[in-house]
Amino acid sequence: MATGSAQLATLHRVAGVRLGSAMAGIKKPNHRDTLLIELDPASSVAALFTRNAFCAAPVQVAKQHLAAAAPRYLLVNTGNANAGTGELGLQAAQASCDAVAALAAVASSEVLPFSTGVIGEHLAVDKLTAALPSAIADLSEEGWLTAASTIMTTDTRPKAASRQFQLDGSTVTITGICKGSGMIKPNMATMLGYVATDAQIAAPLLQSLLREAAEGSFNRITVDSDTSTNDAVVLVASGRAGVAVSADNVAEFAAELNALMVELAQSIIRDGEGASKFVAVTVSGAATIDEALAGAYAVAESPLVKTALAASDPNWGRILAAVGRAGIEALAVDKISVTLNGVTIVEQGGRAASYTEAAGQQAMAAEDIAIGIDLGRGSVSETVWTCDLTYEYVRINAEYRT
Amino acid sequence: MATGSAQLATLHRVAGVRLGSAMAGIKKPNHRDTLLIELDPASSVAALFTRNAFCAAPVQVAKQHLAAAAPRYLLVNTGNANAGTGELGLQAAQASCDAVAALAAVASSEVLPFSTGVIGEHLAVDKLTAALPSAIADLSEEGWLTAASTIMTTDTRPKAASRQFQLDGSTVTITGICKGSGMIKPNMATMLGYVATDAQIAAPLLQSLLREAAEGSFNRITVDSDTSTNDAVVLVASGRAGVAVSADNVAEFAAELNALMVELAQSIIRDGEGASKFVAVTVSGAATIDEALAGAYAVAESPLVKTALAASDPNWGRILAAVGRAGIEALAVDKISVTLNGVTIVEQGGRAASYTEAAGQQAMAAEDIAIGIDLGRGSVSETVWTCDLTYEYVRINAEYRT
Repeated sequence: MATGSAQLATLHRVAGVRLGSAMAGIKKPNHRDTLLIELDPASSVAALFTRNAFCAAPVQVAKQHLAAAAPRYLLVNTGNANAGTGELGLQAAQASCDAVAALAAVASSEVLPFSTGVIGEHLAVDKLTAALPSAIADLSEEGWLTAASTIMTTDTRPKAASRQFQLDGSTVTITGICKGSGMIKPNMATMLGYVATDAQIAAPLLQSLLREAAEGSFNRITVDSDTSTNDAVVLVASGRAGVAVSADNVAEFAAELNALMVELAQSIIRDGEGASKFVAVTVSGAATIDEALAGAYAVAESPLVKTALAASDPNWGRILAAVGRAGIEALAVDKISVTLNGVTIVEQGGRAASYTEAAGQQAMAAEDIAIGIDLGRGSVSETVWTCDLTYEYVRINAEYRT
Repeated sequence: MATGSAQLATLHRVAGVRLGSAMAGIKKPNHRDTLLIELDPASSVAALFTRNAFCAAPVQVAKQHLAAAAPRYLLVNTGNANAGTGELGLQAAQASCDAVAALAAVASSEVLPFSTGVIGEHLAVDKLTAALPSAIADLSEEGWLTAASTIMTTDTRPKAASRQFQLDGSTVTITGICKGSGMIKPNMATMLGYVATDAQIAAPLLQSLLREAAEGSFNRITVDSDTSTNDAVVLVASGRAGVAVSADNVAEFAAELNALMVELAQSIIRDGEGASKFVAVTVSGAATIDEALAGAYAVAESPLVKTALAASDPNWGRILAAVGRAGIEALAVDKISVTLNGVTIVEQGGRAASYTEAAGQQAMAAEDIAIGIDLGRGSVSETVWTCDLTYEYVRINAEYRT
């Protein structure tokens, strides 16, 4: 199941960034599971990784390589996360970089490895390296859509976004892809996202742009509150558009980047495992960002709220109960109001006088649900995106390894 | 679904405590939904309530009454939680106490109200009060088993425990009942528990005994991480056994009380909504209680771990991933080991050399699963009890109001 349209907009190529896919047969045969991304030598690269203490071998190797050199190649495999694999896993991640380096005549530290799939099984690095020549032969600036499909695991459809805009009189492009459907509560990043622009951006600025964009997008989504071991998001600036991002125009560029990353993050929720609803939980009237997020995540992660959403049941009591346990200091219950797709269901902490069950059910029948919670104690507002909890989620995750 | 045996041990009567059940037709007709518990005038009473900021009207009234007088009657209804019901809800809770007071010739403040059921609908207090005469007529020291059935909601079976032991040469009894199946992550108490002893215990000591026992029992369970609006646990000491609990024998008494409350708390997990597995998650080798609990709850509440448990899948990667996101400072991954029913599956942060998938699957086939996680950084150990996440949980909670 999934929500919204599966239709993707045109994916503009980004000069200086080429993508090639191949079939390595890591988990299943005859299926694209390997992606190589080649970056122009002049590119800047920024990246964010999972904060899970059990970060996967490729995450550890990618961090070391990033610290040592400017990346020229990103290598991604699906079907195996190479996480919880100890010393052998680190060797496998390093060996895959060595293989790319040998074929492409670059240093091994100029290659960043990424893996996604089952945790705790060893990566068949020989299969992966055997597929590299065909990935290299496939390298093309037109490769974005195929790349988006290649990195899918339990995703039911490819996820990508692209936009072009004018910056200082030049056309600038940003195109990105991502994957992720379960084990989704990114903490600094998502389960694999690759975004590239042809603007020229110095590495420190690129890193801060990525951090800010991730904070408002990938760090505001949750399918099941489980942070992955392999989350990573990479932002590349190839510099080929002939325009530089600087203090003068950074706000303009950041607005476009942030919007594109919100689009990518939302596409993960729309394709959340078993999802039949796309849900935006907004907590407003909060005193601080932390309490707004605590309230929004308590609602977005409540199994009782999520199963009620699956049943299109306007069970506002469960929403109040979730806000009530969010740990917000001295919460004044009688100041709280709640809306469902614009219908006021709770005011002053109790059922709204104007509320009817019929109006609530009509609001809940929609595929896209906006839950608005006003705490009435400040002016801060935060939104978290999530999906409902369905039979299908349980089926997918009970059967994942079989 | 539920796990373990539905068989209850003999429920010993507690001198000075009488229980009477009745049918008020609050949600469904011809169904016991109202319980009255009468306490000997010499009784001491201790109670703990939910920390959910949206605590229900009866919780607010019960707290006020407890502060004003020593309780003589506890009135419990199912079918309606009287939560999120504003001023009318408070009036309804007060009116139900007034009605008991009038019939029993006590002060209204000597009555404590408790409700459980749907949140956000108004309590039919007239139906409740109309059933009081038959509840009073039914009062008996033999009423424990019927009482345990009366307070059920989505519970599939009554929950009770009872024990007798010698204290200073006298026979002392402790008998208790509880209910709860969903919206279970008690925070100081559970979704309704009533425990009584005939020992004589002064109120301040009784409160500290209850707090300690709840901390190790009801505060160590989670079905779905959702803390209820109505949680309450009450401990009564009628004093009729002719023996007083004091500094000299309190350790003995506390050991019996704690064991009984663990038994009650575990019975809630065994009957957790949709449960097909009973799971004890023990984190040992922790540096502090907080980090042991953070790790244990991260695993016990992980939807991915819980769906793997439902499938009897020894997916230890999900266990590691949950521990890794538990926010434990500077966690050294390579010191961690994990066992499943005694089978070592992870050592030094990776798959154990001795581990085979067959051994893991055999361990997971059991109905009772013990997950042991040793962090290798200290000597603190904590256990949390939970159940798996099944289709049945989603069905129950998607259909609850229909």
